[in-house]
Amino acid sequence: MPGNTFGTLFRVTTWGESHGRAIGAVIDGCPPGVPLTAEMIQQELERRRPGKGGATSPRKEPDRVEIMSGVFRPEGCEHELTTGTPISLVIFNRDAHSRSYDHIRDVFRPGHGDLSYQAKYGIRDHRGGGRASARETAARVAAGAVAAQLLNLHAIDVVAYTVALGGIETDKRDLRVIGENRLFCPDNEAAARMEERIAQVRAQGDTLGGIVEIRAVCPPGLGEPVFDKLDAELARALMSIGAVKGVEIGAGFRAAAMTGSENNDPISPSGFMGNNAGGILAGISNGEHLVMRVAVKPIPSINREQQTVNSANEPVTIRIGGRHDISAIPRIVPVCEAMVRLTLADHLLRQLAIVETRNRLLRQRDGRDG
Amino acid sequence: MPGNTFGTLFRVTTWGESHGRAIGAVIDGCPPGVPLTAEMIQQELERRRPGKGGATSPRKEPDRVEIMSGVFRPEGCEHELTTGTPISLVIFNRDAHSRSYDHIRDVFRPGHGDLSYQAKYGIRDHRGGGRASARETAARVAAGAVAAQLLNLHAIDVVAYTVALGGIETDKRDLRVIGENRLFCPDNEAAARMEERIAQVRAQGDTLGGIVEIRAVCPPGLGEPVFDKLDAELARALMSIGAVKGVEIGAGFRAAAMTGSENNDPISPSGFMGNNAGGILAGISNGEHLVMRVAVKPIPSINREQQTVNSANEPVTIRIGGRHDISAIPRIVPVCEAMVRLTLADHLLRQLAIVETRNRLLRQRDGRDG
Amino acid sequence: MPGNTFGTLFRVTTWGESHGRAIGAVIDGCPPGVPLTAEMIQQELERRRPGKGGATSPRKEPDRVEIMSGVFRPEGCEHELTTGTPISLVIFNRDAHSRSYDHIRDVFRPGHGDLSYQAKYGIRDHRGGGRASARETAARVAAGAVAAQLLNLHAIDVVAYTVALGGIETDKRDLRVIGENRLFCPDNEAAARMEERIAQVRAQGDTLGGIVEIRAVCPPGLGEPVFDKLDAELARALMSIGAVKGVEIGAGFRAAAMTGSENNDPISPSGFMGNNAGGILAGISNGEHLVMRVAVKPIPSINREQQTVNSANEPVTIRIGGRHDISAIPRIVPVCEAMVRLTLADHLLRQLAIVETRNRLLRQRDGRDG
Amino acid sequence: MPGNTFGTLFRVTTWGESHGRAIGAVIDGCPPGVPLTAEMIQQELERRRPGKGGATSPRKEPDRVEIMSGVFRPEGCEHELTTGTPISLVIFNRDAHSRSYDHIRDVFRPGHGDLSYQAKYGIRDHRGGGRASARETAARVAAGAVAAQLLNLHAIDVVAYTVALGGIETDKRDLRVIGENRLFCPDNEAAARMEERIAQVRAQGDTLGGIVEIRAVCPPGLGEPVFDKLDAELARALMSIGAVKGVEIGAGFRAAAMTGSENNDPISPSGFMGNNAGGILAGISNGEHLVMRVAVKPIPSINREQQTVNSANEPVTIRIGGRHDISAIPRIVPVCEAMVRLTLADHLLRQLAIVETRNRLLRQRDGRDG
Repeated sequence: MPGNTFGTLFRVTTWGESHGRAIGAVIDGCPPGVPLTAEMIQQELERRRPGKGGATSPRKEPDRVEIMSGVFRPEGCEHELTTGTPISLVIFNRDAHSRSYDHIRDVFRPGHGDLSYQAKYGIRDHRGGGRASARETAARVAAGAVAAQLLNLHAIDVVAYTVALGGIETDKRDLRVIGENRLFCPDNEAAARMEERIAQVRAQGDTLGGIVEIRAVCPPGLGEPVFDKLDAELARALMSIGAVKGVEIGAGFRAAAMTGSENNDPISPSGFMGNNAGGILAGISNGEHLVMRVAVKPIPSINREQQTVNSANEPVTIRIGGRHDISAIPRIVPVCEAMVRLTLADHLLRQLAIVETRNRLLRQRDGRDG
Repeated sequence: MPGNTFGTLFRVTTWGESHGRAIGAVIDGCPPGVPLTAEMIQQELERRRPGKGGATSPRKEPDRVEIMSGVFRPEGCEHELTTGTPISLVIFNRDAHSRSYDHIRDVFRPGHGDLSYQAKYGIRDHRGGGRASARETAARVAAGAVAAQLLNLHAIDVVAYTVALGGIETDKRDLRVIGENRLFCPDNEAAARMEERIAQVRAQGDTLGGIVEIRAVCPPGLGEPVFDKLDAELARALMSIGAVKGVEIGAGFRAAAMTGSENNDPISPSGFMGNNAGGILAGISNGEHLVMRVAVKPIPSINREQQTVNSANEPVTIRIGGRHDISAIPRIVPVCEAMVRLTLADHLLRQLAIVETRNRLLRQRDGRDG
Repeated sequence: MPGNTFGTLFRVTTWGESHGRAIGAVIDGCPPGVPLTAEMIQQELERRRPGKGGATSPRKEPDRVEIMSGVFRPEGCEHELTTGTPISLVIFNRDAHSRSYDHIRDVFRPGHGDLSYQAKYGIRDHRGGGRASARETAARVAAGAVAAQLLNLHAIDVVAYTVALGGIETDKRDLRVIGENRLFCPDNEAAARMEERIAQVRAQGDTLGGIVEIRAVCPPGLGEPVFDKLDAELARALMSIGAVKGVEIGAGFRAAAMTGSENNDPISPSGFMGNNAGGILAGISNGEHLVMRVAVKPIPSINREQQTVNSANEPVTIRIGGRHDISAIPRIVPVCEAMVRLTLADHLLRQLAIVETRNRLLRQRDGRDG
Repeated sequence: MPGNTFGTLFRVTTWGESHGRAIGAVIDGCPPGVPLTAEMIQQELERRRPGKGGATSPRKEPDRVEIMSGVFRPEGCEHELTTGTPISLVIFNRDAHSRSYDHIRDVFRPGHGDLSYQAKYGIRDHRGGGRASARETAARVAAGAVAAQLLNLHAIDVVAYTVALGGIETDKRDLRVIGENRLFCPDNEAAARMEERIAQVRAQGDTLGGIVEIRAVCPPGLGEPVFDKLDAELARALMSIGAVKGVEIGAGFRAAAMTGSENNDPISPSGFMGNNAGGILAGISNGEHLVMRVAVKPIPSINREQQTVNSANEPVTIRIGGRHDISAIPRIVPVCEAMVRLTLADHLLRQLAIVETRNRLLRQRDGRDG
């Protein structure tokens, strides 16, 4: 099965290359009646816009999303509502300099998908990374904004933030200050040191990785054992983001060195007395906050000489200049939120059918249905 | 969509509760003509058998697998071959003492899925964890053994081993000695220290976690961007194992603190000059070894008093005695192998359709088809 | 994707060959709390049992179904309930004489799947048709009985009956008499003539086809345009039964010769004033009875000499003796019901997620949720 | 699962409403290297263009398709090739008079999906039928043109034609004359009579149905028993077209009145000696021509007074004037071809993975792989 569709009941199919005519997403399965305007989606897209921080390149991407289908404004209604039919979102590509990619047409850039795409397909659109470009994630963010509208109705809330960048970590989780710095960091002081680190490696023509944490308010009962466990699905969703090389839930890799008595979260009548589980037990949400962390690798496009081969398998050296980000952070932060939202929207709908049947059984037992 | 099926072309559906009549798996999509006997599967099951090491409980699980369908021995053929129809595997449950679980029928054990299953379904088979029991993984191992037979034909090889247990880590990767110790550890000396640690916490009624690494020989071209990337699918596969709380590929979380120049794997005419990528670029295998690591949490069934609630949400304390493992390691090691094999078998078949069309196009260009 | 799974939310995977150890089905996605015992399933299986009528062979098939997983009897509950986990059903094969199939091992029987299976897989279990045997439908009937339990809760009712056999048709639809004759015919007089026809062709070593009509009480709103329309899904479900060569909904092929003014069903405040649509408009149920008809081909195993080839593509003649039915009717009648039930159970669950979200939106608009 | 995606390996997702901004399709899974230009797709779209025949309305639909992604022209290559990434096709809507639909905003037109869409979703875009409009099929035809490019490589050919319209049937199958009349009829004389019938009912403000036959050259081995049999999948594909109320394969409903000895196709060393099976045995293509027929209902929009209800369930009468076709034929003919092509492209890819593994096994047995 081809791999450009995500989700089973809330389904997103994305398409588009970095330097093609447009990129886009089709959302199939959003329930009808959910308020949705282009502006709502646009707001989320603005959050991943480059040029906002020291870590990002100056490329201008207006990224204006257009809704092509799936919404309708009934008489007397303030704005459009979803109709239950597929929602097609298109973002036309502008300001893309295809010419500047001619020199890498036949060269496999280290750390990029050039070589593996060639191996798989025998043909590739080399311009700006083609389908493998991070630009593809704009479609995810747009789709995630649709999911957010649905999740709002069910009081499900998702927030992502930077907890490490270039080796600088923070244990502070003051979520109120995330919007105050350009790195979506819940610790303004750490953010300042991260910016210094960015300036430093920029001068060296190098790039940085980091760690993003995602937290979600989520009702209990989401997740479908034994293979579509909520943590498994979240791991897949997050690992499908290009730069992500690791995912952990709750205590994650720290749990590996704990004893059971340390790691188990005791339970009291008012809830769990700890959250090493990260809100998920046996693959099903338990009502606590979902907590995930992802390892983001440094951007592979560095302004330094690198050893590689061309399509004739001859050794060559390349230096990738041009307008490139220093780190996938902060741009990846809204992408992480989007992928978690898409996963939760899907699992919410998957659980609702069960809920509805359970309610009906209870009503029948109580004699309310007859 | 319910969650008990894994894979799209090589599809496995598992079923069964810990203390029900049986557990099993149906494999749909295994190509015809692959040699397969119950003995081949049995061999893999033996590897996850308890009672083999200090970390495991003495419960006897003969775990005899039976092949109910999908194989046939043609005249003159040495053994059964797959026929392309569904392969049904059944393992009957024996030696299961349902009685011993009566005391936890109405209690939610910390660290287990009792509470989340109840929240989701409103009903659960509490005996031995029911569907959430680690026993379910026997069906995965059995299915993985079928995948192994297919992968053999394509020279794809998977091996997993223990690199940390109870806080004791090793950097040694002497894969030849994995079979020499009971923990599947590629470092006999570290394995000895791990066994000491196990003895220590056993005396304390406590349990341990650890880290398993999986390595695979894999051809380039597997993985389906942008959502079914090979790393995304492997992450989902591994995170769907009950005790796993984290997954990383290649350099994983270490990559977060690297610079681009450190993390990028240079390429030479004879191959990659490093494997921080863990064999996957842009979600597609690049021909290098796949390398993954998973964080395994300590087993939640500890022989110590724990605070929790019952189904009436009243506070209670429990102590879980009985025959329990100290660590999911080493039993989880063959399970990790199985999940990686199932993922690779699926993606192999997904890639073959592309390969076949590419070959045809090449033949037509060369005029060989006419 | 392999083809032995049916449905997306209510999913059935069947397995097994006619003369293998067993056949079975795994139902994944049945909501929890639904009453289910082996007896409930057994009742449905009895209806397709051979030896009950003149059209069927004397082969004894006790067809005892066993529930291997997915049900649990809570304390104080009268019988087992589904738990939301996979329900595994197994029917062991007995009374199967593999020997009697040796003579057709290398011969492709006309009208059977012998040749096409060989072409596809390069290997096949020839005994009794292997996977292509009508015996496979016993697993469908068993799974359909589980669906029936769920549909009961939602007042969805399905009934199938014979309206033509061997060229003898009836326009009568007295559903009360279906159980009074061995052919599930809503016209006892026509049934008698059909039995005569059966006796006649039996003497000639020949076989007969017929037409089965299926009728269902179904709420409006089921079906997922534009590809998973309810009529499209029902057509697939019914056409997947071996002997079925045609499916029509409502007026079906008669509609092809009507004018729009004849075919359109006018609507009054109390409902539709006709049902040429067969209960489905634009792929969505409209609240009227669903009405479908399927064309059933004559059974290909005839006791007459037939011209064919063997696996070396040499011309041979065969005569298929032994215990064979004269017509797929009446055995196919419960199979048609099962396939319609499985389709409706699946689409019911698919619709419930939408219903639940709509209800929530309405409550929020009314201020009931806050 | 939402229903706007068709296929598993060759997957098409369509979107768009009749009077929204655009309609479109995303094709995911087309293998790389297949020649594809907008012109190739445009040619197919022209075939379903209205204004070409007496049965169709004068509405102008330029229907210019644009390829937004998934193709790339390598250096030195004559035209674009597919890259293996999603192919996004967009057709912008023009010449759509939304105003003319105001009067039916609150009225449920008989024979249309107005009532059932409202029942399902609680909201609908009423303009021109919204998502339920036949205009949606333009996206199918566009996607089918992509499938045709792939099928060409494998010598799979599909043609549809009209065999009945308004009660006038023909037994002639002179496929050479299909392009000579406006109804795609393989019998020019019958076509002339059909045109007369059209003129007649047009004067009466009424509409007509008919029967379309589809024939395909197809290799043996396609189809995935037991649920995704080729006939089952073709039935679903064809029944998912709005106006289709019946599907039959080979002898179809005629088989119901045949005996086995009449219906069985004998086999000779040079092939089948008949094709009552319609090219499919046990759900797998047998190498003969695939032959299907679909019943097309008369267009429900008639220029005559009809009885119905409004959204307040009050009785009203409506007369639907305006530019409407008299029959879904001939426009539906290329749509039938498209749906069969999409089904065959999908099953071709599904079979290729099996083929490739079988080839490998044969090579290994012959010692060619080692």
